[in-house]
Amino acid sequence: MGLVVQKFGGTSVGSSERIQNVANRVIEEKAAGNDVVVVVSAMGKTTDELVSLSKELNENPSKREMDMLLTTGEQITISLLSLALQAKGHDAVSLTGWQAGMKTEEVHGNARITNIETVRIKQYLKENKIVVVAGFQGITENNEITTLGRGGSDTTAVALAAALEAEKCDIYTDVTGVYTTDPRYVKGARKLNSISYDEMLELANLGAGVLHPRAVEFAKNYEVKLEVRSSLEKERGTIIKEEAEMEDNLLVRGIAFEDNISRVTVIGMEDDIYTLPSIFSLLAKHHINVDIIVQSVTSAKSAVSFSVKTEELQRTLSVLEAQKRNLQYEEVEHENGLSKVSIVGSGMVSNPGVAAKMFEVLQDSKVQVKMVSTSEIKVSTVVVQKDMVKAVEALHETFELTNERVGK
Amino acid sequence: MGLVVQKFGGTSVGSSERIQNVANRVIEEKAAGNDVVVVVSAMGKTTDELVSLSKELNENPSKREMDMLLTTGEQITISLLSLALQAKGHDAVSLTGWQAGMKTEEVHGNARITNIETVRIKQYLKENKIVVVAGFQGITENNEITTLGRGGSDTTAVALAAALEAEKCDIYTDVTGVYTTDPRYVKGARKLNSISYDEMLELANLGAGVLHPRAVEFAKNYEVKLEVRSSLEKERGTIIKEEAEMEDNLLVRGIAFEDNISRVTVIGMEDDIYTLPSIFSLLAKHHINVDIIVQSVTSAKSAVSFSVKTEELQRTLSVLEAQKRNLQYEEVEHENGLSKVSIVGSGMVSNPGVAAKMFEVLQDSKVQVKMVSTSEIKVSTVVVQKDMVKAVEALHETFELTNERVGK
Repeated sequence: MGLVVQKFGGTSVGSSERIQNVANRVIEEKAAGNDVVVVVSAMGKTTDELVSLSKELNENPSKREMDMLLTTGEQITISLLSLALQAKGHDAVSLTGWQAGMKTEEVHGNARITNIETVRIKQYLKENKIVVVAGFQGITENNEITTLGRGGSDTTAVALAAALEAEKCDIYTDVTGVYTTDPRYVKGARKLNSISYDEMLELANLGAGVLHPRAVEFAKNYEVKLEVRSSLEKERGTIIKEEAEMEDNLLVRGIAFEDNISRVTVIGMEDDIYTLPSIFSLLAKHHINVDIIVQSVTSAKSAVSFSVKTEELQRTLSVLEAQKRNLQYEEVEHENGLSKVSIVGSGMVSNPGVAAKMFEVLQDSKVQVKMVSTSEIKVSTVVVQKDMVKAVEALHETFELTNERVGK
Repeated sequence: MGLVVQKFGGTSVGSSERIQNVANRVIEEKAAGNDVVVVVSAMGKTTDELVSLSKELNENPSKREMDMLLTTGEQITISLLSLALQAKGHDAVSLTGWQAGMKTEEVHGNARITNIETVRIKQYLKENKIVVVAGFQGITENNEITTLGRGGSDTTAVALAAALEAEKCDIYTDVTGVYTTDPRYVKGARKLNSISYDEMLELANLGAGVLHPRAVEFAKNYEVKLEVRSSLEKERGTIIKEEAEMEDNLLVRGIAFEDNISRVTVIGMEDDIYTLPSIFSLLAKHHINVDIIVQSVTSAKSAVSFSVKTEELQRTLSVLEAQKRNLQYEEVEHENGLSKVSIVGSGMVSNPGVAAKMFEVLQDSKVQVKMVSTSEIKVSTVVVQKDMVKAVEALHETFELTNERVGK
């Protein structure tokens, strides 16, 4: 008997039938003798509909008013879920972000949680109520309504679990857990029983959409035990905690990939020391996210390459072009149609040969590596997009992640 | 140059085009040099849609969760209207009921305003912002979200106008003002330039749907100058204030009517003094609204008749039947297919012959009067439903309300 925080995303609460289903999952947890706090997102397409309404009135809407608008989405869900729970004979109470004491910094659209005042939630739990909290939203010191940005409901759930010292935080979603790689692309992909925070953080950052990196970071910092599982199927999901279990203790735990990557190369900079930081602070000022950066100094010309999302390529090139005089470079080249393929695993720290093995496998598969970036527990490579799945399959096989080989 | 509170109902903000139109009306008022506070309702059918969603999950929803659900409607409108105003180059800011300091009693579904903390609105006005406030909603001492019940947005607007000492409060709606009677039924119906609070209160209570009685009561108590006018047409509407203007100073100012009335008669009560209060406290306990009450004591049997809405007749009869033993009466009769026709005017106070004249007119028109109820400024009669329009037309003519006769 303990406290469990459950989080259900937009797809899981997308219709009144699905809300009924969620209510049943909540009641099961309660019937098992646990206190339950439920965090929900806006119903399915609600957010998109509200955004399109706003666009009809203002093409460049203020973030404050968008927060005001979009937070109605979760408020609708919390009341509907509470009504469903009440209809099934359970005592439930809904709370908006501000009622739940979710304090954030003074920023609209992407605020960070600063503090959670849990008095009210704790009081309701003491009264044996199921507490249903609106995800994604918070309130500033000045009583301004804020939102937590993409994946915000995950963060709400994890932050509440931390503040309430919950036994665990279950993230219900439309997949059954975290996989060694994306099962839509690789047949042998296998669900992991467990994974460490650091590995999950790398995977989340590398494009595995199942959990938002910020939520994982929060979970790691406060040691919140997470489980990612399906809202429709009963099977256990993947547990995310400090150390993964032995049975999953492989050298490489997962393979992430992402397409629509472009490489930009700035050639012939007069003064590297001055120019390099200038380029990246210029791009940051324009909110362009640069991923992998590779610097090469040859005898001939100095050059720096970096990867961006292809959708941001044109803007990147314009920004660089506009500042050509200031930055004093010779020319900019770019290449489209690239992908990023990454291997992640805590075991790499003590196994220096993993990167080498990765390059070997890719070479054997005739996959050209365009860029490389490493951390203690991951190696990312940029490859040609058409080779992406081939690369992932070869790596999945080599690092013994495939179902048949490892069993389970 | 002063402060104007404008209120726009659900039809006026029913689409993004209509919100654009509302934004223009707000900007006109601002451009005339006034500070502007705008109160809005939920968009057109939003409330109905949310109610039907809730019914899918819970047939007997808790009022607390319905308040949580329905208050999202106005929150959507305030942000959209603010976005529209901003797109047109105006500095606007939206506030939910709780952000606007709208404090209410601890009741869900039908709370009364206890106090308005205007600090935040005043600060924004000082910054020359247009303030857009969510109607219909408030907050209790315990930070519970409440709603003000039917016509609640009118009440929000009037209460804000009172608290902010506004110069006037304009209620924008889909009609051009308050009429001598319903123009959909009576051709000669004429828009009034002005009407007193008391007269408006009677008309509102008698079924003239243009303004909610509670809002009128509030306006009267705090002497808020109201104007009811069209959100689509430019013409002046009807001003509601302490004393009506001379040109409108007729004996009878308006004729209200309402159909689907039933009469219930309880016959042969053993002990009137005990039974009469028991009947009406019993019905009140079951939330049945009794309107006109007529008691008759003949030599034969004592009886009491009262009118209820026909939709509440079956419930009324069941409640009485269940308590027959307790109440000790002989039998209950009822009659359906009735209507209420009322004349309203402050001038009646000093003209005792008005009721007599009304009966005379009805008799001349062969309209049988089933029940009568009077106050200082109104006379209500219950007549057979098929005679309703005929009665209204005859009274409208007799009391010189018709266009042709009075001119304007």
